Amino acid sequence: MYKKGLVFWLTGLPCSGKTTISKKLKKYLKNKSESVQRLDGDILRKTISKDLGFSKKDRIKNIHRVAYLAKILADNGVNVIVALISPYQKSRDFARKVCPNFIEIYVKCSIEECKRRDIKGMYEKALKGKIIDFTGVQDSYEEPQNPEITIDTEKLSTEDDLKIIINYLKK
Amino acid sequence: MYKKGLVFWLTGLPCSGKTTISKKLKKYLKNKSESVQRLDGDILRKTISKDLGFSKKDRIKNIHRVAYLAKILADNGVNVIVALISPYQKSRDFARKVCPNFIEIYVKCSIEECKRRDIKGMYEKALKGKIIDFTGVQDSYEEPQNPEITIDTEKLSTEDDLKIIINYLKK
Repeated sequence: MYKKGLVFWLTGLPCSGKTTISKKLKKYLKNKSESVQRLDGDILRKTISKDLGFSKKDRIKNIHRVAYLAKILADNGVNVIVALISPYQKSRDFARKVCPNFIEIYVKCSIEECKRRDIKGMYEKALKGKIIDFTGVQDSYEEPQNPEITIDTEKLSTEDDLKIIINYLKK
Repeated sequence: MYKKGLVFWLTGLPCSGKTTISKKLKKYLKNKSESVQRLDGDILRKTISKDLGFSKKDRIKNIHRVAYLAKILADNGVNVIVALISPYQKSRDFARKVCPNFIEIYVKCSIEECKRRDIKGMYEKALKGKIIDFTGVQDSYEEPQNPEITIDTEKLSTEDDLKIIINYLKK
């Protein structure tokens, strides 16, 4: 029998640093010869979720779909790193129920800092109404209530954030 | 690096024997200590494709979604066995393009025999118009043009069908 993989579920505001951390974590696990699949919101929306928009209903559908996908991978011994805004507590709880070895990682960053980092100008566009249903502007982000890990990308470097995750794994 | 998995794509009419063969093949591969995931149409429609119906448009969406799922699994070294009516050549060709190591298996069986096997009475319901968009009744099934393997579940036993697949793998 195959050991089940871990599901690292990175949640946070747009531009909080989810993708950056997920890539670093993937590299770390690959170096340990672990099987790893990164599931990034931006990429999934071009494939398995390409029929979905950004309304609350569609976001929930997307989170559920990614959860099922993560579960199938983890069931086959693949470690999964999800990088998805996943703004709703209820949807993240759904993912937790579906996935084995679920590790919720709150990628914390103030909205002011997220806006500063936003090279694509998405926050600005949302504030002007050119993008709708944008998390942090029109749509709310519900902070995780009991995440396994919180990493503060505003106060710490990416290296230090990664160390926090690695320390959690060692425990 | 992980070796990519194979994608066995079983296509055929409802009740042609896809699920039966897929379970046998899974057992065979498991006994060889291979990592295997079965993706069965009936199960997927309760999870990753639960928002989809059976119209041509939705069927195409479903096939695409399953193809992406199979690809991610195979990329991680998992052998995937898809058991899905997948009635359209164009959609199967899409799956072939997306998935590495794609093996199209045509599960061949006459519609008369499929009807005889249909314990749920789906063909009968479709003929009476109680089920719509049913493959083989209202919706057409396009026979594979160049499948890697054809197995005839009407003429051969499940054991013999499995042997055909195994022989193909040995080549």
